Amino acid sequence: MAKELGITARADNYAEWYNDLVKRADLADNSVVRGCMVIKPHGYAVWERMQAALDGLFKEHGHVNAYFPLLIPKSFLSKEAEHVEGFAKECAVVTHHRLMNSPDGKGVVVDPEAKLEEELIIRPTSETIIWNAYKGWIQSYRDLPLLINQWANVMRWELRPRLFLRTAEFLWQEGHTAHATFDEAEAEARLILHKCYQKFIEEWMAVPVVVGPKSEGEKFPGAVTTYTLEAMTQDLRAIQAGTSHNLGQNFAKAFDVTFQSAEGKLEYVYATSWGVSTRLVGTLLMVHSDDKGFVCPPRLAPIQVVFVPIGRGDERQAVLDKVKELADALKSSTWAGDRIRVHIDDREKETPGFKFNHWEMRGICLRVEIGPRDLEAYQCVLARRDDGKKETVQLDQLADKVVDALGSMQMRLYAKAAELMAANTRRVDTWDEFLKAFEGEGGAGFILAHWDGTQETEDAISAATKATIRCIPLEPHDPADIEPGTCVYSGKPSARRVVFARAY
Amino acid sequence: MAKELGITARADNYAEWYNDLVKRADLADNSVVRGCMVIKPHGYAVWERMQAALDGLFKEHGHVNAYFPLLIPKSFLSKEAEHVEGFAKECAVVTHHRLMNSPDGKGVVVDPEAKLEEELIIRPTSETIIWNAYKGWIQSYRDLPLLINQWANVMRWELRPRLFLRTAEFLWQEGHTAHATFDEAEAEARLILHKCYQKFIEEWMAVPVVVGPKSEGEKFPGAVTTYTLEAMTQDLRAIQAGTSHNLGQNFAKAFDVTFQSAEGKLEYVYATSWGVSTRLVGTLLMVHSDDKGFVCPPRLAPIQVVFVPIGRGDERQAVLDKVKELADALKSSTWAGDRIRVHIDDREKETPGFKFNHWEMRGICLRVEIGPRDLEAYQCVLARRDDGKKETVQLDQLADKVVDALGSMQMRLYAKAAELMAANTRRVDTWDEFLKAFEGEGGAGFILAHWDGTQETEDAISAATKATIRCIPLEPHDPADIEPGTCVYSGKPSARRVVFARAY
Repeated sequence: MAKELGITARADNYAEWYNDLVKRADLADNSVVRGCMVIKPHGYAVWERMQAALDGLFKEHGHVNAYFPLLIPKSFLSKEAEHVEGFAKECAVVTHHRLMNSPDGKGVVVDPEAKLEEELIIRPTSETIIWNAYKGWIQSYRDLPLLINQWANVMRWELRPRLFLRTAEFLWQEGHTAHATFDEAEAEARLILHKCYQKFIEEWMAVPVVVGPKSEGEKFPGAVTTYTLEAMTQDLRAIQAGTSHNLGQNFAKAFDVTFQSAEGKLEYVYATSWGVSTRLVGTLLMVHSDDKGFVCPPRLAPIQVVFVPIGRGDERQAVLDKVKELADALKSSTWAGDRIRVHIDDREKETPGFKFNHWEMRGICLRVEIGPRDLEAYQCVLARRDDGKKETVQLDQLADKVVDALGSMQMRLYAKAAELMAANTRRVDTWDEFLKAFEGEGGAGFILAHWDGTQETEDAISAATKATIRCIPLEPHDPADIEPGTCVYSGKPSARRVVFARAY
Repeated sequence: MAKELGITARADNYAEWYNDLVKRADLADNSVVRGCMVIKPHGYAVWERMQAALDGLFKEHGHVNAYFPLLIPKSFLSKEAEHVEGFAKECAVVTHHRLMNSPDGKGVVVDPEAKLEEELIIRPTSETIIWNAYKGWIQSYRDLPLLINQWANVMRWELRPRLFLRTAEFLWQEGHTAHATFDEAEAEARLILHKCYQKFIEEWMAVPVVVGPKSEGEKFPGAVTTYTLEAMTQDLRAIQAGTSHNLGQNFAKAFDVTFQSAEGKLEYVYATSWGVSTRLVGTLLMVHSDDKGFVCPPRLAPIQVVFVPIGRGDERQAVLDKVKELADALKSSTWAGDRIRVHIDDREKETPGFKFNHWEMRGICLRVEIGPRDLEAYQCVLARRDDGKKETVQLDQLADKVVDALGSMQMRLYAKAAELMAANTRRVDTWDEFLKAFEGEGGAGFILAHWDGTQETEDAISAATKATIRCIPLEPHDPADIEPGTCVYSGKPSARRVVFARAY
């Protein structure tokens, strides 16, 4: 059936399923510029809802938005020693500021006279340009904390781009805060991790995550600690949903940002940075969608309920009138703090069957079918996108049933994803077992194994299995996970188990 | 007094006043990257309110948001003949996609191996990349109209940047719509002009505008008609607040975008584009602010009411408690459809006088002063930012008085700006008079004069006076303005009067 709709089944080829899904659900498309995507209106509407929820959470915790330049002087990238290794490589470089008519009269060419003195880089992330600005903003402890977020586009020249998951240009938010003490910075990094990101990913996206620090080898270039949130896809890989970094004094030292403390001492400022991106849309797709297309949790769905009026000729108008009445009533109802988002598909030239598939593909949560006979019987059919169940509903019960179904769908999607994660998280104690778990090329779920804490072992395991340490969970699955043991690879002492997985 | 606060008086030097204002009101700052500004949290909060209002108006009229790539292949700019002349000159050119460690070990250099086959331009506007995408989206009349908007950053390498008014990088929205007929495109360009832009600029920004087409010489490169909205600054110059273009079939032809009509004919698609930018923040500042700093219309003010509790020692806590109670009550009141935005300045180390200046500079609409004696008398002082008037108010009347004052301030700011515009719009009938009007270097208001309709005359007038045709008003100031006459410069026949001014 999936093939009929033009979308590969997950079981046949998960990667192709994902690409088909993004395109057929009208979410995004490739552009002529390599690695840069076009986010189509339906995909952008999901991102807008993500932005609104996250922005609300940031502001609830005292953060404000600002905007910093797109372009960064090349020399800035070399100021923080680790940062340059991580970010100053695959990036877009602006070298000139003018075009001119081609001497042969055909089109335009770069004006060689307009070469910049210093090349500019399109921001791959903004720590450097922002800390350069903060130098002028921070003098005293009274200027702290500075709790600033930016919504922006960034660019990293990706070699193997995939829509939403890994694109050269992507949209994100990046928070950059400044604090008087290490502890305050640490508390901020944790606040964002739990109260903003984890809350949003679990409660809006209905995606369970394992949360904790990255290993040294996987952390952000320039960070003291990187906290991550890792979700599990249906093909049992890990996907990093967001990160929050305690940067210590590294960027303050690189950009010489000091403050006078309450005691009159001159000290370097402590920093955090944290970000989530349009990759969250890819994560959402990977976790919930099925062979019929997009499955969207109700809190993020651009349209929650679609009405499909059935009937032709004379009967059509009466059905349409009733549908408009029902839709208006529904639009003034609320669920999860928002007005219910409703659409009427009154296209005349398409069949009901075509419309059912059309809206299923696009992830609309609930479908209301209503025809002349339903009208007579004062009822309609309510169909759920997640489990496909259909129910006959009295018209005066519709609003209540819709509210119930949205709530139940939001919960069920979370529960289903949590079950998958639980069923595919397991402990492995020997290197043979570990190798066996990662046989083949696919995902193997989350493997909880002991590790000796060294970079060498992490590298060796990764070289042998393509699995990496995704996270050192703050909340262990089992108390025994944080008891000492011996490293699955080296046999050396290990403080606790960590999560290994193949990742997107 | 202005000098004391560190801001030049308008009468002394209007340009310096503007720069001082932007910086002292904490709205924006220059960055290390030439022409690129940092929008600080207070300035960004104004822009966020502008975005929210405009986005609501666009959506009310059926538009949806999407996102297109930042980078445009160089060859795209040459596809539309007029467009290339207008936009393919001062722009940021990406030529490489990688940096490498410098052979001398000092920092990073551009990797010469990573030269792009075709240079990419940072979008100065997105018609070309969007119409290239629309080619794949539009086949039939059923795909039309396409009503898409994008919120994005764009870049034009400005030679004389000024904060908010003219910056190399700026934030804006750009609408790009596709239609089946010329008339539909024309109706769309007018809808955006009046129902979105004019409504927003007048009702939210409290800025009166003259609205109408540009002359041929001033229109957007590639447009059939450019509609503009022109405001007047306090130094009597024109400032273009936004534009809406009917693009005819020019871009459809350049990118070969056709559709099958209902009658089965293959036709080129008709287009519009329209945009407003962070320049609106500059316009807002130019129109309303004064020698004490920012004056912000209540509908756009990030903070509408600031409480300044007065009193020390034992008395302080009782005042603070009452202030919190009053602020909470006010926060749950609404004005103009939104919760009232309130801040309490409870800083202990600053004097009331310092706080008054601080918030006046930042454009907070209303200040509530309350001290121990006020508390005893069950009253407070309510001070207005626009006219500086103070009123003693019973505490149980405060919410009502605040609502009244916000409404009255919003109206008064509009009326004051409209008066300035009316007083400085005049008819000029001879070339001598015209030259006299533009004596000196400053603004001369709006001059309504006859023009023969030719580019040569427009150029000659501009060369002699630095005044340009700002607009051919759709609604004449006086019916006589649209009667025929003789051109103020050439003496040739003229169809009607047009607006001349010096502009920002």
